[in-house]
Amino acid sequence: MSEKKFVEEITPMDEDFARWYTDICKKAELIEYTSVKGCMVLRPYGCSIWENIQKLLDARFKELGHENVYMPLFISESLLQKEKDHVKGFAPEVAWITHGGGEKLEEKLCVRPTSETLFCEHYANIIHSYRDLPKLYNQWVSVVRWEKTTRPFLRTREFWWQEGHTIHAAAEEAMAETEGMLDVYAKFCENQLAIPVIKGRKTESDKFAGAEATYAIEALMHDGKALQAGTSHYFGDGFAKAFEITYTNKDNQKAYPFQTSWGVSTRLIGGIIMTHGDNRGLVLPPAVAPIQAVIIPIAQHKAGVLEKCAELKEKLSAFRVKLDDSENSAGWKFSEYEMKGVPVRIELGPRDIEAGGCVMVTRHDGNKETVSLDDIENALERKLNEVRDGLYAKALANREKRTYACRSMDEISDCLAKNGDGFVKAMWCGDEECENKVKEQTGVSSRCIPKEQERIDDVCVCCGKKAEYMLYWGKAY
Amino acid sequence: MSEKKFVEEITPMDEDFARWYTDICKKAELIEYTSVKGCMVLRPYGCSIWENIQKLLDARFKELGHENVYMPLFISESLLQKEKDHVKGFAPEVAWITHGGGEKLEEKLCVRPTSETLFCEHYANIIHSYRDLPKLYNQWVSVVRWEKTTRPFLRTREFWWQEGHTIHAAAEEAMAETEGMLDVYAKFCENQLAIPVIKGRKTESDKFAGAEATYAIEALMHDGKALQAGTSHYFGDGFAKAFEITYTNKDNQKAYPFQTSWGVSTRLIGGIIMTHGDNRGLVLPPAVAPIQAVIIPIAQHKAGVLEKCAELKEKLSAFRVKLDDSENSAGWKFSEYEMKGVPVRIELGPRDIEAGGCVMVTRHDGNKETVSLDDIENALERKLNEVRDGLYAKALANREKRTYACRSMDEISDCLAKNGDGFVKAMWCGDEECENKVKEQTGVSSRCIPKEQERIDDVCVCCGKKAEYMLYWGKAY
Repeated sequence: MSEKKFVEEITPMDEDFARWYTDICKKAELIEYTSVKGCMVLRPYGCSIWENIQKLLDARFKELGHENVYMPLFISESLLQKEKDHVKGFAPEVAWITHGGGEKLEEKLCVRPTSETLFCEHYANIIHSYRDLPKLYNQWVSVVRWEKTTRPFLRTREFWWQEGHTIHAAAEEAMAETEGMLDVYAKFCENQLAIPVIKGRKTESDKFAGAEATYAIEALMHDGKALQAGTSHYFGDGFAKAFEITYTNKDNQKAYPFQTSWGVSTRLIGGIIMTHGDNRGLVLPPAVAPIQAVIIPIAQHKAGVLEKCAELKEKLSAFRVKLDDSENSAGWKFSEYEMKGVPVRIELGPRDIEAGGCVMVTRHDGNKETVSLDDIENALERKLNEVRDGLYAKALANREKRTYACRSMDEISDCLAKNGDGFVKAMWCGDEECENKVKEQTGVSSRCIPKEQERIDDVCVCCGKKAEYMLYWGKAY
Repeated sequence: MSEKKFVEEITPMDEDFARWYTDICKKAELIEYTSVKGCMVLRPYGCSIWENIQKLLDARFKELGHENVYMPLFISESLLQKEKDHVKGFAPEVAWITHGGGEKLEEKLCVRPTSETLFCEHYANIIHSYRDLPKLYNQWVSVVRWEKTTRPFLRTREFWWQEGHTIHAAAEEAMAETEGMLDVYAKFCENQLAIPVIKGRKTESDKFAGAEATYAIEALMHDGKALQAGTSHYFGDGFAKAFEITYTNKDNQKAYPFQTSWGVSTRLIGGIIMTHGDNRGLVLPPAVAPIQAVIIPIAQHKAGVLEKCAELKEKLSAFRVKLDDSENSAGWKFSEYEMKGVPVRIELGPRDIEAGGCVMVTRHDGNKETVSLDDIENALERKLNEVRDGLYAKALANREKRTYACRSMDEISDCLAKNGDGFVKAMWCGDEECENKVKEQTGVSSRCIPKEQERIDDVCVCCGKKAEYMLYWGKAY
């Protein structure tokens, strides 16, 4: 395969964004399809990105006092049905086990689409006194939702995620947890994944099934479509009442506790691809890149080159560094690691060795810099920070370019027709009917009520009555 | 609850070993039952032990060049059926999904009982040339087997494990991998979990469904029953042929590759309980203990005590140390952490502070030692090593005491009746009929053909014909 061909295999993003996306998923060896529709194999490179996400988030969760548990994979039909809104939301998209061990089951079981009901059953068993509260639990598992249309990372029948489930004596404490974990997600996306996000509350119609309030972080992809990148839910005591979770409070009274849940998933990898990727392939933020820098020997058969490269790798052992000393040509290697989105390429050849330096090339902007081998650790550290900042700035610029403040339905339609998809900021009266009308007439649905409100107008963009909120609207993945 | 009562809740092991076991699982808060039979919740303390096992093994696997992946949760009926022996072994104990998203599925899917078929399907997709070999893959997931009788950690319908699946160009390479990974497991059990194991090969009748050879590590529990603690399988090219996995070799010929798989599971936690536990509760090997040392302040309301304890904790930050400064009495705390199996207890009170020392008590033998606060890090390091060595020696002594070399069927029966359950070493001709007869007549089944053979006799313990192997026999969990 020639170097040219290697790159040509990716469909240009302007030609067909959806194909560009799946090309990257496949060619960068993140995933492979299987014979079960909507279920994918997470290949070593994709799995490693997820493991890095996991490590960073898990450490942060634990710092904040959360503990990991594993709940069962199965939920009985009767358990799923205990909370009325919850079952209404999830029952239509679950997979049912009807037979096990050669026999028909007395009661069918579904594969968890999410685990609120399992946590509630467990909490009812283990919580008796105010001394047992709070419980701050989390689990890293896969869940199953029988989606009709599927797409790698964004919508698959099985996907990997973490789900935090906490339970508290006081409502305020649970509310603080809900918003606090949204902040954790937002900071993670911005600082580690270099993805700017809007933090906000979902409208009533868009809440999680069974929640009193749902908060989300929303990111804007390269093509102007919105991606819900993480959610955090406040349940009040609704689940506690449905599942009869009670405890004896300090006044020796029976009381209901308050709950939250929050999650991010392998969808974040889809977000990374569509925020940072380009026509040459994947572009990875350094914090989660399986390989942070690749060393490519130039004229590797010349005396001393490979030795010096190995030395360099040794020196950089604090980072995730790969030395590619294979027989492929340097040009081939350049294309391969560009495709794989490795943030920094280090070139080292006879002339560099003579000069006591090497060349560092950053993937996202192609910038080249010659750096001294003496100071290589600091140089790489600095480069990786530059990459993160550069990626973030680029993504933020794209979002700003594609965020439109609109005062009428016509303005929304015209603006999107002229400028392409993006976030629309527009006022809303709070009425679900208006929310639906905006979607029907302009194609954008409400993404969230951002925490940071702006007053774009005094009246609802749809009905002209008094506006209650400024909303972000968009076409969503 | 009085201190006395806390301990009294565990059934003594000599009274009822099975109840002692489940008491520990529950009271040490490792697991909780759920409304779905055979599925358990892994609670924070149990989950943390599993996470420590995972971290150590995962690092070792990666050192040896393995990469993690995630395969789907589901296997279609037709995929499961591709390898004849494999389906025969697993089909009777799988759970079947028949409906998804409100509709009957065209083809039913089972929840993976193990993932050979999924790895094979994937390998067939991604392996084309000798350059694509070997693939050294592993995944950390849960699997489901519809067991009739279940017991926490030892036999549950869902359990957590890792499954390694590798594929190689040469048969010798795959065989070396199979035996090499068994060694990794054996060393892990002995060095980290302090559980002595016998490495050996399973007899033909006891092989994994579809394997050419199955190797296992076998441990002896406190009650004299055997626990299969890990397995490693060599598949030859049988799966490759069934799944049409082919590659072009260096001579440009189509060839079939050779495969292995190997796994350990949360069953190891059951092994830890039954190897090291005692009537006061759990006893944990330091390498996987969620808390390696607990600091218990003595007379904690006296001036300076809690400050000094906090200082001590800070000094020991290289270890997993907990300071319990709760209002419970010191005696209560002693019982609680003994129950939870914390390897080392550090007592620190006014008199210790005056003397510049503290008291270290090791959980497994109750030994007390006063150590200087100046050298506390080294002292704890030394103590933890002593604990590991002490646990191992104790477990090895139990196994040696309970291992019997027998030359006849009567000797086996008499020996077990007199000394209680244990490992029986006896010669075997290699005939399955004799293997079955030994089991029927004496109650012990073949555990493995140990790598280290001994010549106990010249003839088979059953038929009296020429002996081929020395076998370990035992009653198995």
